[in-house]
Amino acid sequence: VGWARQPNGPSVQEYLEKALLRITKEKISVIGAGRTDAGVHAAAQVANFKTKASLKIEEFKRAINGNLPAGIQIAKAEEVPIKFHARFSAKWREYVYQIVIMEEKPIFLDRYTYHLRKKVNVKKMREAIRFLVGKHDFSAFAAGEEDHSRVRRLIDLEITQGKIALYPGVKERQAAALVFRVKANGFLRKMVRLMIGTLLEVGRGKISPDQVKQILKSKDNQLSGAAAPARGLILNKIDY
Amino acid sequence: VGWARQPNGPSVQEYLEKALLRITKEKISVIGAGRTDAGVHAAAQVANFKTKASLKIEEFKRAINGNLPAGIQIAKAEEVPIKFHARFSAKWREYVYQIVIMEEKPIFLDRYTYHLRKKVNVKKMREAIRFLVGKHDFSAFAAGEEDHSRVRRLIDLEITQGKIALYPGVKERQAAALVFRVKANGFLRKMVRLMIGTLLEVGRGKISPDQVKQILKSKDNQLSGAAAPARGLILNKIDY
Repeated sequence: VGWARQPNGPSVQEYLEKALLRITKEKISVIGAGRTDAGVHAAAQVANFKTKASLKIEEFKRAINGNLPAGIQIAKAEEVPIKFHARFSAKWREYVYQIVIMEEKPIFLDRYTYHLRKKVNVKKMREAIRFLVGKHDFSAFAAGEEDHSRVRRLIDLEITQGKIALYPGVKERQAAALVFRVKANGFLRKMVRLMIGTLLEVGRGKISPDQVKQILKSKDNQLSGAAAPARGLILNKIDY
Repeated sequence: VGWARQPNGPSVQEYLEKALLRITKEKISVIGAGRTDAGVHAAAQVANFKTKASLKIEEFKRAINGNLPAGIQIAKAEEVPIKFHARFSAKWREYVYQIVIMEEKPIFLDRYTYHLRKKVNVKKMREAIRFLVGKHDFSAFAAGEEDHSRVRRLIDLEITQGKIALYPGVKERQAAALVFRVKANGFLRKMVRLMIGTLLEVGRGKISPDQVKQILKSKDNQLSGAAAPARGLILNKIDY
């Protein structure tokens, strides 16, 4: 059900805390850098915890991985200063959003891409992006309750047009692809997906680039487009 | 459970025949070019059927796709001469086998690749391949009961070393990859996976390239290596 512990199903956080309970016999709270929703791929999630256990760091990694289900793993483990906080110490985060454009269903890519049947106008989307980059109140692109301030600094939002191999080992079978890279000092809930959903409305000609500027200014999340589906979204990098 | 109709679960063939029954009210037998096993990805499967229904070919495609589950689709449909037989008319088939080599689990690629933690000796595997290419009795690389002749012409078996993106839209996150391409006029049951499993034993230094020659000559499938896992195997092309 995504990163955050919650009643309606097992979360990544819960799996980690259960693994740590088994290993250390301590009731440990794991702090994650980003609370990715269900269906979003947290390839570069960072999490920290405090413990009195005296295991070496590589032993911790091996022991936790031995207690996790197939879709979750610790890729790298290191000791950090006691004041390190996975969420608050982060300087910026980068998400990638993958779209594949083809007539058929992209069966091999389906879990990690959003599928469009028709081309969208990338030039118009880039015009709209200019209004989003910078320090703004992003309330119009936020879902649900949020912390005190909704001001974030959107460092970069770029679109790359290219080709995606239908399966990675074969170069001759490709589909058109759009890859969004979004970098900010922090993100509000569903912010990336709401921005991309809105930009796709621009790309489809349903709204103009200028309207994106108005939506941002309105601070009203009823005006933004529908959130793009979770499966295309990947947490790609966090910098400290 | 793979292509072929069988009692222990729904097969691709069964789904297609059920869709055709719904559309045409005829009990139609669908003939597939290759009987891929469960877990093998039939990206380029070809199948044919005969019908008295008068739908146009594009209507057939749309109607069948509307009656198939998420993991199966008709990518292309065309009318063929009445004597066309998806299996017997095929000149050659090509399979691709994808291996990713990395320390961590390749979570995003897991369904479509086989995962190795350590490098294998590609030079030695290529030496062994020389004994396999050509027209031979491939009994040593066949599972279970088979048709009259086990002679097949292995047209090509090549290994490409390269990089695979962990998710296709991002180029900076890559893992080492080995991609096998195997082309033959026809394949015996599990032949590709048994050949690759045996070649990997060569690559790991467990058997010598010369021993592959002996295994082929023996016609004894007790001597070949364990079949490489289904998930790395993709039916990539069939030529008529």
